[in-house]
Amino acid sequence: MLTQKIVKLKEKLFSQAGLVEEMVTKSTRALVEKNESIAKETIKIDEPKVNNLEMEIEEDAINLMALYQPEASDLRTIIMIIKINKDLERIGDHAVNIAERALDLISKPKIKPLIDIPRMAENACKMLRESLNAFAKNESKLAIEVCENDSVVDALLDQITRELLTYMMSDPSVIDRALNLILISRDLERIADLATNIAEDTIFVAKGNVIKHHKGNE
Amino acid sequence: MLTQKIVKLKEKLFSQAGLVEEMVTKSTRALVEKNESIAKETIKIDEPKVNNLEMEIEEDAINLMALYQPEASDLRTIIMIIKINKDLERIGDHAVNIAERALDLISKPKIKPLIDIPRMAENACKMLRESLNAFAKNESKLAIEVCENDSVVDALLDQITRELLTYMMSDPSVIDRALNLILISRDLERIADLATNIAEDTIFVAKGNVIKHHKGNE
Repeated sequence: MLTQKIVKLKEKLFSQAGLVEEMVTKSTRALVEKNESIAKETIKIDEPKVNNLEMEIEEDAINLMALYQPEASDLRTIIMIIKINKDLERIGDHAVNIAERALDLISKPKIKPLIDIPRMAENACKMLRESLNAFAKNESKLAIEVCENDSVVDALLDQITRELLTYMMSDPSVIDRALNLILISRDLERIADLATNIAEDTIFVAKGNVIKHHKGNE
Repeated sequence: MLTQKIVKLKEKLFSQAGLVEEMVTKSTRALVEKNESIAKETIKIDEPKVNNLEMEIEEDAINLMALYQPEASDLRTIIMIIKINKDLERIGDHAVNIAERALDLISKPKIKPLIDIPRMAENACKMLRESLNAFAKNESKLAIEVCENDSVVDALLDQITRELLTYMMSDPSVIDRALNLILISRDLERIADLATNIAEDTIFVAKGNVIKHHKGNE
């Protein structure tokens, strides 16, 4: 009975992961395509959908613990669901930040074609999918790969920041737009970090082995 | 017996809060006073102290749940300890970011006297102290005040960003330093957001009343 309830709760968590991944993809698309309505759609997914589902998942998890008083691995799984749930909601918030900055940038001329930012978004979404996949299958090998991919996103962030700094220095009129793009790339990097957190928690459940703080990933 | 164990666990959480508050204060002081050794001290508090204590608190919380199978309000309290514990660790990570940026800025001339950044840090630390205080006393009134104060920090962030943008535009040679200061002020704003999360969780425990998502605070 508890096992079934946990399966259902995991399904809700995966729906939430699907929603926030959609938000990350849409917010970046809104930026690249200068599409105001896609940016606004992103924000509407967050509130109310993602925020309501976050509260529902947490309530369900607490109720499961109160009703079934699970032991050992079930207990750990439910606690990880609570933590992953919070991480997903934060990813949604970062996607909202990106959508809001995109709305600000849409009315202004582009500084440059955006290549690395969508690449970062793709990487972050892939990490998110794979971290949830690792959690679903309880597979620490997959989760370790996610942790390793984080450095790719960090390298992209450095590259984007350096490039945009040169734009800022050669033409002060682009400074505010370039700053917005730097902040968007930082939101994407935080999304990748949160996916890494989820992967770390998965390893924790799968192995009872704490690999947190293997590097300063925030 | 469980009650005593929860009191002990809360004490550990408060020590952790003290450590991360010290980190926020020190990292900002390192920046303002251009003091390399204080910046390095901040980083040393995070790893190993704060990171180890985070894992210890989470383990203790999970063990309490497994051993005592607490119900209702005790269960909620322990789950909130797990969540607050994670928020505190994230605050520590933001303080490390500030310390690292301070180390980068120490060797370079100051753009301007820093007034608003230390003010932001003070506000964020006050919010952190008060959110933990609200949790300790189980007082939602105090916690609501913390949530309200978040807008003060947001306003300071806007002001700092606007001011630094004008510096960037009038003198391209300060762009990288100004960007560093903008990113530091964003770390401080995130610290205030995390204190707000703690306050929201406190209200949740105190009233069983979810006030999350009362505004997009991430």
